[in-house]
Amino acid sequence: MTGNIIGERFVVVSFGESHGKCVGAVVDGCPAGLELSEADIQKELDLRKPGLSSVTSPRAEEDRVEILSGVFEGRTTGSPICMLIWNKDVDSEPYRMFVNRPRPGHADYVARVKYGGFADWRGSGRFSGRITASLVMAGAVAKKLLSKTLGVEIMAYTLEIGGVRAKNFTLEDIRNKRYSNEVRCPDEVAANKMIKRINEVKDEGDSLGGIVECQVLGLPVGLGEPIFSALDSDLSKALFAIPAVKGVEFGAGFVAAKLLGSQNNDPYAIIDGKVVTLTNNAGGILGGISTGMPLIVRVAFKPPSSIAKKQTTVDLDSMKEVEISVKGRHDPTVVPRAVPVVEAVVAIVLADHAIRAGFIPPVLRC
Amino acid sequence: MTGNIIGERFVVVSFGESHGKCVGAVVDGCPAGLELSEADIQKELDLRKPGLSSVTSPRAEEDRVEILSGVFEGRTTGSPICMLIWNKDVDSEPYRMFVNRPRPGHADYVARVKYGGFADWRGSGRFSGRITASLVMAGAVAKKLLSKTLGVEIMAYTLEIGGVRAKNFTLEDIRNKRYSNEVRCPDEVAANKMIKRINEVKDEGDSLGGIVECQVLGLPVGLGEPIFSALDSDLSKALFAIPAVKGVEFGAGFVAAKLLGSQNNDPYAIIDGKVVTLTNNAGGILGGISTGMPLIVRVAFKPPSSIAKKQTTVDLDSMKEVEISVKGRHDPTVVPRAVPVVEAVVAIVLADHAIRAGFIPPVLRC
Amino acid sequence: MTGNIIGERFVVVSFGESHGKCVGAVVDGCPAGLELSEADIQKELDLRKPGLSSVTSPRAEEDRVEILSGVFEGRTTGSPICMLIWNKDVDSEPYRMFVNRPRPGHADYVARVKYGGFADWRGSGRFSGRITASLVMAGAVAKKLLSKTLGVEIMAYTLEIGGVRAKNFTLEDIRNKRYSNEVRCPDEVAANKMIKRINEVKDEGDSLGGIVECQVLGLPVGLGEPIFSALDSDLSKALFAIPAVKGVEFGAGFVAAKLLGSQNNDPYAIIDGKVVTLTNNAGGILGGISTGMPLIVRVAFKPPSSIAKKQTTVDLDSMKEVEISVKGRHDPTVVPRAVPVVEAVVAIVLADHAIRAGFIPPVLRC
Amino acid sequence: MTGNIIGERFVVVSFGESHGKCVGAVVDGCPAGLELSEADIQKELDLRKPGLSSVTSPRAEEDRVEILSGVFEGRTTGSPICMLIWNKDVDSEPYRMFVNRPRPGHADYVARVKYGGFADWRGSGRFSGRITASLVMAGAVAKKLLSKTLGVEIMAYTLEIGGVRAKNFTLEDIRNKRYSNEVRCPDEVAANKMIKRINEVKDEGDSLGGIVECQVLGLPVGLGEPIFSALDSDLSKALFAIPAVKGVEFGAGFVAAKLLGSQNNDPYAIIDGKVVTLTNNAGGILGGISTGMPLIVRVAFKPPSSIAKKQTTVDLDSMKEVEISVKGRHDPTVVPRAVPVVEAVVAIVLADHAIRAGFIPPVLRC
Repeated sequence: MTGNIIGERFVVVSFGESHGKCVGAVVDGCPAGLELSEADIQKELDLRKPGLSSVTSPRAEEDRVEILSGVFEGRTTGSPICMLIWNKDVDSEPYRMFVNRPRPGHADYVARVKYGGFADWRGSGRFSGRITASLVMAGAVAKKLLSKTLGVEIMAYTLEIGGVRAKNFTLEDIRNKRYSNEVRCPDEVAANKMIKRINEVKDEGDSLGGIVECQVLGLPVGLGEPIFSALDSDLSKALFAIPAVKGVEFGAGFVAAKLLGSQNNDPYAIIDGKVVTLTNNAGGILGGISTGMPLIVRVAFKPPSSIAKKQTTVDLDSMKEVEISVKGRHDPTVVPRAVPVVEAVVAIVLADHAIRAGFIPPVLRC
Repeated sequence: MTGNIIGERFVVVSFGESHGKCVGAVVDGCPAGLELSEADIQKELDLRKPGLSSVTSPRAEEDRVEILSGVFEGRTTGSPICMLIWNKDVDSEPYRMFVNRPRPGHADYVARVKYGGFADWRGSGRFSGRITASLVMAGAVAKKLLSKTLGVEIMAYTLEIGGVRAKNFTLEDIRNKRYSNEVRCPDEVAANKMIKRINEVKDEGDSLGGIVECQVLGLPVGLGEPIFSALDSDLSKALFAIPAVKGVEFGAGFVAAKLLGSQNNDPYAIIDGKVVTLTNNAGGILGGISTGMPLIVRVAFKPPSSIAKKQTTVDLDSMKEVEISVKGRHDPTVVPRAVPVVEAVVAIVLADHAIRAGFIPPVLRC
Repeated sequence: MTGNIIGERFVVVSFGESHGKCVGAVVDGCPAGLELSEADIQKELDLRKPGLSSVTSPRAEEDRVEILSGVFEGRTTGSPICMLIWNKDVDSEPYRMFVNRPRPGHADYVARVKYGGFADWRGSGRFSGRITASLVMAGAVAKKLLSKTLGVEIMAYTLEIGGVRAKNFTLEDIRNKRYSNEVRCPDEVAANKMIKRINEVKDEGDSLGGIVECQVLGLPVGLGEPIFSALDSDLSKALFAIPAVKGVEFGAGFVAAKLLGSQNNDPYAIIDGKVVTLTNNAGGILGGISTGMPLIVRVAFKPPSSIAKKQTTVDLDSMKEVEISVKGRHDPTVVPRAVPVVEAVVAIVLADHAIRAGFIPPVLRC
Repeated sequence: MTGNIIGERFVVVSFGESHGKCVGAVVDGCPAGLELSEADIQKELDLRKPGLSSVTSPRAEEDRVEILSGVFEGRTTGSPICMLIWNKDVDSEPYRMFVNRPRPGHADYVARVKYGGFADWRGSGRFSGRITASLVMAGAVAKKLLSKTLGVEIMAYTLEIGGVRAKNFTLEDIRNKRYSNEVRCPDEVAANKMIKRINEVKDEGDSLGGIVECQVLGLPVGLGEPIFSALDSDLSKALFAIPAVKGVEFGAGFVAAKLLGSQNNDPYAIIDGKVVTLTNNAGGILGGISTGMPLIVRVAFKPPSSIAKKQTTVDLDSMKEVEISVKGRHDPTVVPRAVPVVEAVVAIVLADHAIRAGFIPPVLRC
């Protein structure tokens, strides 16, 4: 299969460019009978769209979704669901120069080499963060499917920005507060520090990275097909498709590398007649299969590469080193806007595996 | 596709169980004309096999590979290459009890639920580290292919065990020293500390995790198919297929989340008429595509879950909590033996992408 | 992969419904650098569209294609190409009754059972012949790609309608005359008989089947990946995706079953220094691989199931047998309109295999 | 995916060569809990093996299957099932000359070009009919799975050899008599004529083609994923993977092209409270989906290309035309031995689709 398609039984196709006509997605394999409306998709898209706060890009896109196929009389039909948003507020000219003077840390150079100079460079084309809208559209379908059939709840939130880490928060805080501040952080004290740090850095023409954490509640035991389609394998594959991701870890993650087996192993216990573990260093996955405990994954985002600060690059015509400063409407950090994207991507993979493991039937009979 | 198959154009199928008849792999899609012998595979398998040192399992397996198909007169034919090793030194009885009393941190419980009690529990069956032999066999083919056609060099090594981190080593140390000590660490001072730590922990009936780092030299610009088959996407997917992996990061990885854009961006420069970057926080991948700089990936391994120390689990018949102590021939840490496995897995993914991107033709004409 | 996606390296996704908003396709994997315009697609769509002649459906659709992505400055970019046509002249009401009274020979009944009553029944939804527009759009890209890179020429034409078979025609007749009559038949005498037969049957409220033959010139030796992705395997898979197809045969086809080996084997010869065969009973494929001789495939189409004549069906509510007569704008035969569809489908498969076999590179450098 | 792998959820991998060490298959995705023994596989292999009658090749192979993985305590485990037979009675030398003097009608020439001269030519290597043993092994698993879970019965038989067509037979004849004569034909009068014709032709050093018909009883409504993974699409793809197949048709097949809609449409009726059709020109598939009526498919086999009669070919070294006569142990017709192969291939595709459509769960709980 080619690179813009993912999944086995709940398949997502992404298409569109940042400054082309539109950004869209096709979902093939969604069971028939799921209630689905444009409002379901819009709700998620609105969480991703730019221009909403002081800490994100001012690009003003309405990002109004249109469902073009696969839904009839308010329900999915079992046929491919094509959805898209039209691009409107485009200003491509500032990007022209990056074709010959690639931005450090961006895909300009590799895109030029790989696609022989034919890639659409406007607004970074296929390498724009805007392409994540296709993930969010498809993810909205997946989330609704998982929620309606299995009661699965997927919650991502900002854990860290610019070294400021959220520490004091409960599951209820995640559920209720993650979308109540501009940085989508369930710890409000940390959130304020993050916002302050973002604003400082933005004024300096620089940018910040961070970490998004995602928890999934309500998964049954048994999702995942070891060895190559292990649940963590497929989740990480999809998460690295999000631009700017440089690391993915589950449960204790890299910290597990420093623990003793006796510390890291999660002891089993019986609670309310159910087999559970008393800790969750596994992050809800053992042997590539969901354990029934909360799935916990963390995703490291690098700071956006498009910064106003002067940087050294090369002019590919003259083959000389030059300085550039990237103007334009760029996010000082992508982390807050990545929160709904991580949720969407996790949902897409879980929906696929829930169908594969037989937890969701091909038709949702009412 | 199902879970035991990976790749698009260089495809690997894994089969076999820890205490069944054999562990094997089929490679489909290897170009015709590659010189290949059992010695090429054996060399890599020998680096993975148990019983070689004081810090690994004493299980005594010869692990002698047989190529069953796909090679004729010393060269690949373009047909599927089936390879296997036979299991000999099996002692299954100690594993019987884990069917009802699942080991904390191991896949016993999820395997039982997912496969309805039909999974082969002997030696952990499909969830044994021994299954990585199938990766090493397939990876040996991939490594030879990449080396012969593109001159690609893949080197993994132990970066950290039990919190002891290698710090002082050069590329030459990696090349020459990584297999000269029992822990496969290019920093000999750190290596000695790691060995000491392993032996301490082993005596306590406990285990250690660690980090394997892998560098790949000689990759051309242009491997990877964004967005879903980005090079980092596919590498991470394959790496999480290795048992005990809990995190994967590229270049600066999770540290990038703490950097400013101006720190993390790798400035471009011209050296010897070639476009390079002066730093490599990207780890050789931008926008999901190889940059031509060294590919750098780190893989976090949790400590082995099978430990002699007493742990709490549940008896699934009586549904009561019980204590277990896992006897048997287990590794106190999997990290040293994981080194050739990481190399193999990275090779498999790179071979696939090198073919997909047109860098390796379907026939290697002499 | 799910059912609306085909191909490995030149991948086609079909979406849309007959009376929904649109019918569309996404092509992923088309090499960068191919000159492509909406006119290239429109030209092929115009050959498929209804309302053009007395022997086809009078539905009046403009079928004007829009390319939504993947083309920039007149060339493909290497990104997914999304194309669609909007539906305009829809009249869904006549179809409502078939939900409970399924048309004999149509998919009404199986669609209802498989999709639990959620399928879009308007204009037969996903089971309409109109969905072949998505094949034609994608096929137009494939045809241009094959033509520009390899000089491959793909020509389908009507061989038989209602038992009237074309007999006297040359390759030049195929090339020049197949689109010069309403039935797309290179033998004008036969064409006239076919038209007469169609008009007779149409007046009786009945319909006719037929056979489309397709020849492909200019293929190199070596397309096809035995055993399961043999060239004939993949062609037949794609051809049976066209509604109403009941048989596919290559070269001598079913007639080969009656021949002796000494009759059926094509003797090799050297002509102009090139290895050729003197006959072509193989139809250009041996062992699942293209031979370099013309590829010849024949596709049997059943008569359209929607006929005005009275037929017996069942009422699924009352579970009683009832009579129906299918009114509406149906084709008395699909064969003439299937001609460009067969060309498109053949082109899609050949483009995929030409890329897989290394005959077309990922970037078409000018 | 590459060419030696087929299926989505019940996946078959074929490996091995005619005169290499073995011929084998891996099945990935078979549900856990299916009772399976080597006897189940052997039974089917014995029907395919050579040397059984006067009308087949005298090659004496025991073809004793070994299951190497995926079965534990008499049941499938959900892990990949690797099975193989070892090659014993090989006599490769007669094949050496075909490398330079390709047999008309065989794959010698295309194999040489495609694989650059590296293909294993011994016994025709991967292009030997012996490779169908891998299909039969995998098909035996599929047949048992379909039978145990859904009661599906798959019966192939010889319909025609050398122009002699079976005419008078009932479903009971198929069930009871198809394996009671050497040509696997349910019509004994026709069978005798076929045997006579084969012996005549054999004496002349020539060969015969024929047609295998396959009926499947007990399929539920709803298998198949239109448009590209329609049931007929996937069946035909798999059937063309069998060497020597030149045509595939369903139900009325090519004859449908000559019928009127009013003749070809199968009227619906209610019998015993169940929706059925009174005729079955559809062959059990409408719109690419199983109708619940018997699935009927016919497969045209060309006469074997390896014949003793003199034929013209070319010497690829001297580039001159030469005559060859193919000695060796070849079948005068492959049709009788193809009968169990067709059953196997049909079973593989149906098992895959039955799992995909949710009719077979991932675990067969007793």
